[in-house]
Amino acid sequence: MSEDLLREDDLAFQLHDVLKVTDMLAYPRFADHDREVFDQVLASARSIAEEKFRPHNRAADLAEPYLENGKVVLLPEVKEALDAFFSAGFAAGHHDAEIGGLQLPWTIQQAAFSYFKAANISSIAYAFLTIAAANLLLAHGTASQKRRFLEPMMSGRFFGTMMLSEPHAGSSLSDVRTKAVPTAEEGVYRISGSKMWISGGQQEMSENIVHMVLARIEGAPAGVKGLSLFAIPRYRVAEDGSIGADNDVRVAGLNHKMGYRGTVNTVMALGENGDCLGEIVGEPGRGLAGMFHMMNEARIGVSLGAVMLAYTGYRHSLMYARERPQGRHPGEKDPASPQVPLIEHADIRRLLLTQKTAAEGGLSLALFTASLIDRQHNHPDEAVREDSRRLLDVLTPVLKSWFSDRALEANTAAIQIMGGYGYTRDYPVEQFWRDNRLNPIHEGTNGIQAIDLLGRKAVIEGGRGLDLLHTEIVETIAATRAQTEDGDGRLAAEALMLEAMTSRHRQVTEKLTSARADMGDRAVLANATAYMEFTGRVVESWVWLRQAVIALRLLTEEEAGDERRHFLEGKIHACRWYFAHELPRAGPVADLLDRMDGTSLAMQDVWF
Amino acid sequence: MSEDLLREDDLAFQLHDVLKVTDMLAYPRFADHDREVFDQVLASARSIAEEKFRPHNRAADLAEPYLENGKVVLLPEVKEALDAFFSAGFAAGHHDAEIGGLQLPWTIQQAAFSYFKAANISSIAYAFLTIAAANLLLAHGTASQKRRFLEPMMSGRFFGTMMLSEPHAGSSLSDVRTKAVPTAEEGVYRISGSKMWISGGQQEMSENIVHMVLARIEGAPAGVKGLSLFAIPRYRVAEDGSIGADNDVRVAGLNHKMGYRGTVNTVMALGENGDCLGEIVGEPGRGLAGMFHMMNEARIGVSLGAVMLAYTGYRHSLMYARERPQGRHPGEKDPASPQVPLIEHADIRRLLLTQKTAAEGGLSLALFTASLIDRQHNHPDEAVREDSRRLLDVLTPVLKSWFSDRALEANTAAIQIMGGYGYTRDYPVEQFWRDNRLNPIHEGTNGIQAIDLLGRKAVIEGGRGLDLLHTEIVETIAATRAQTEDGDGRLAAEALMLEAMTSRHRQVTEKLTSARADMGDRAVLANATAYMEFTGRVVESWVWLRQAVIALRLLTEEEAGDERRHFLEGKIHACRWYFAHELPRAGPVADLLDRMDGTSLAMQDVWF
Repeated sequence: MSEDLLREDDLAFQLHDVLKVTDMLAYPRFADHDREVFDQVLASARSIAEEKFRPHNRAADLAEPYLENGKVVLLPEVKEALDAFFSAGFAAGHHDAEIGGLQLPWTIQQAAFSYFKAANISSIAYAFLTIAAANLLLAHGTASQKRRFLEPMMSGRFFGTMMLSEPHAGSSLSDVRTKAVPTAEEGVYRISGSKMWISGGQQEMSENIVHMVLARIEGAPAGVKGLSLFAIPRYRVAEDGSIGADNDVRVAGLNHKMGYRGTVNTVMALGENGDCLGEIVGEPGRGLAGMFHMMNEARIGVSLGAVMLAYTGYRHSLMYARERPQGRHPGEKDPASPQVPLIEHADIRRLLLTQKTAAEGGLSLALFTASLIDRQHNHPDEAVREDSRRLLDVLTPVLKSWFSDRALEANTAAIQIMGGYGYTRDYPVEQFWRDNRLNPIHEGTNGIQAIDLLGRKAVIEGGRGLDLLHTEIVETIAATRAQTEDGDGRLAAEALMLEAMTSRHRQVTEKLTSARADMGDRAVLANATAYMEFTGRVVESWVWLRQAVIALRLLTEEEAGDERRHFLEGKIHACRWYFAHELPRAGPVADLLDRMDGTSLAMQDVWF
Repeated sequence: MSEDLLREDDLAFQLHDVLKVTDMLAYPRFADHDREVFDQVLASARSIAEEKFRPHNRAADLAEPYLENGKVVLLPEVKEALDAFFSAGFAAGHHDAEIGGLQLPWTIQQAAFSYFKAANISSIAYAFLTIAAANLLLAHGTASQKRRFLEPMMSGRFFGTMMLSEPHAGSSLSDVRTKAVPTAEEGVYRISGSKMWISGGQQEMSENIVHMVLARIEGAPAGVKGLSLFAIPRYRVAEDGSIGADNDVRVAGLNHKMGYRGTVNTVMALGENGDCLGEIVGEPGRGLAGMFHMMNEARIGVSLGAVMLAYTGYRHSLMYARERPQGRHPGEKDPASPQVPLIEHADIRRLLLTQKTAAEGGLSLALFTASLIDRQHNHPDEAVREDSRRLLDVLTPVLKSWFSDRALEANTAAIQIMGGYGYTRDYPVEQFWRDNRLNPIHEGTNGIQAIDLLGRKAVIEGGRGLDLLHTEIVETIAATRAQTEDGDGRLAAEALMLEAMTSRHRQVTEKLTSARADMGDRAVLANATAYMEFTGRVVESWVWLRQAVIALRLLTEEEAGDERRHFLEGKIHACRWYFAHELPRAGPVADLLDRMDGTSLAMQDVWF
């Protein structure tokens, strides 16, 4: 069994031992399913990922999309892979049965996606964007829009995109200028403007492309409150679903990226000939709010991509480290003795542990956040639903920002292990880094995520979201304590460390959030990235302690075979390694926050 | 004046205010020079770098070398740039006048190289390798070898390479297998074997290529003691210097790297037809020792490349941050207010300071190590010469390893500042990262540098090298103290911090090195990389405090204009920022070392 994408037993551990995902079968929405269905879905994802997505991952990197007579040329394998994906129903997996979905938990959907993202991040992106656009239509579209656009998107006949950025406004959506002028027809607007960084903005794989576009209705106020959301198809779609005239949506150029190359990225011109029509989706002036409705899902999707690139890089470098003989142990003086495999060297193990903790820890958190989405939408108790949303709101920027940084660190460690070979394009790890480098930038840069965490998520609703996070951590610490009292104290020191650091996190948060009134937002938020690092290290420690405490229990309870025991021991040891090497690094960061450091902000432009 | 490669005033500050390089004019070797000569050399380097090297940096990345009828095809601009470099005498700048050199200090030579490396790391590499090979011939070659090989290398008629690695032995030179069989002619051997990762291994720019090759004479012992050094020309060279027959050195293939693409990298087959002759250079069995003689210079050269890629990335992202309007300050509620430039955002300043400290700090240390080479070779007092070598031996792995990691961190920060644009190939910063990613791998991986530091440099000669480093640091602290006593205490807190951390470094070093007898090399050296990080942070702090204390004095003494004052204030503030954000991160690493952490080594293969 090839394990270069993802360890199947790790995925099962996350879903069943950590998340107990089958408990969700108690929700009416999932009542018709059972574990066997979930297993079949994952097996199908794995086989399509391995057979259709993975084989052309490097080819798509080398054969970058180009324009020929105004059309985007892609490798044919991209379409073949996506056909297999849509045919197997993955785009509709989470939707209601009544609109053709399978009513799968979002957690299972994400677990399935983990294979595709590890296998080929740039080909699966077309599906990911289509699903995101479809989700917007499902939430805010009219019956006609759903019939004409959403249904063909679920089956893969139409693809979708998200059009937010403009050449002068990447992060600052407040400054979007694309204009919408009402026409005689209700809800239909004439659109003009240009859009930047549009992934999948143009291609010939799907019969049509439905762009979800942020634009400003003529006369609307400046800022985000003036933004509305529009569905703008490449070709117009009549009421009966038939495809009609060209809608004046042009590709003005392609962006040439350092990675993620298989996903064509375009500059788009809307309404150059004055003939681009858009249909408003939702209320005028509620465009960004509508988009943010789907933002957690989108950010978790991006994070899962980052984490899975770390995961596959980890597996590739692990296999290399096991096979490649190089050097001898320190102190071995006999040059005639055989060389030992790389994995025998302590520093290689350190680089592998850096990757293992980032990849498996990241996957664990990504699936936990997905389970919060399921709970938010399906739990019978409204208070639990609300709290799930609050916890999700806090964890999403941490997952997006902290783990996309950690994932890059993991990918560069994979290159380092493989040395000169890792630096060449004959091996995949250099591409993983290049592909992954986008993740801290798109879907809200990591700096913006940090401001979102400290400036907004830590304070809204009285800081309830963070309280919920702290409660989760305390529960894991309590579980570890109980184990210690039962006679196995292998994780006792880690529980103490996390308890102290969590208490410090609470204090620092309180200090920072209450300082805003006196010091002003600018001074306090100047250290938002440090606060993100502190929070990230605490959350990652918790994710690892939680895995370890479960692994330790299973080791005692199960009559497990060698492979399972080794796997569980690996979880425990990786936890101990993280607490020894990584968690303590939160200390100086907490100190910096505690003293409200002002040195970044105080640096003057003319001093650089 | 374009400052996207290097701030000229920073280079002058490093050379004259920090290093007082003109003090070297007192050495007889440099007695004929003066500051004007040094300035002319640097001005010439700058103009050749800007006019000949920088313009084709991206073109060489895109037009990767390829083989056509067995010949390597490169952009013609590469040769044009190198012609300008050799014509200006840069390859011979540091050599004795009697063999055609300028007798320039190595420090000035490196300062000149800083421009070339910032402008085009892959084109200058051909010259860098030629100089390194020439230095080996100068140190160990016979009179005939010097006449036939060295002289044409100094003028750029011949280029040189270093051939160490083989496909099965990258880091482990002990396992080199290339074979040398004596011929009837004294000192001439018949060579056979294959070599890997040979930069510049084949090209048509120079009339000939002189490969400096590690090989094992038939019957020589296993391990590094069986290795000898050979000069193997592509075409044989007769006693009268005329170029003769092909020497059976073939290119077996090219390696396709993620960066550094302009430097062709080859797999080489030596003696496939049994007709490859090599001339021994130095004593049989002393090949590696001979190479190590030049290792400090080579590693400093690699480090300077890493640092200069960080430097130019910093300058590019700084210019972008000053020009690109994006977003508003936190708390600014009016969306109709104009956007502010990126540099107004605290997190962008943090990313710029990350780069400034890595780039300017790295350059400062690289030039200091170059000045140690000058002192080692030219100081009248033998004790000073010896101590210069010892301090250099300790600082070289720190510069190579810590600063190549910091430089990569800087390059990824440049991408982050520039967002989507930074991720595209329309801007140079993504290439800087890719080019730079090689530096932690080649010329001894960073993991190996760390073992060299803790396992060898920290202990040889009774740890005298580290004592000298600690003494340098103590002197800088004393200078800061004196300033505080004179009434300006702006750096007093930093001096205290560094004093405490240096004292801790001394204790931890003592503990680790004395533990080897009991715990064994494997257990102690398992944390070599942590020891490197600890040492790196202490050294980088010292480099910054030294710059700051000088800047503070100059601010008081000079009647400086605004630009100079801003520059000096920037040095002081960057120091304060480093001490606030980066030095404290050494604390948990010191703790880890103090408790002799064993978690990396204890991780078992089967647990991954």
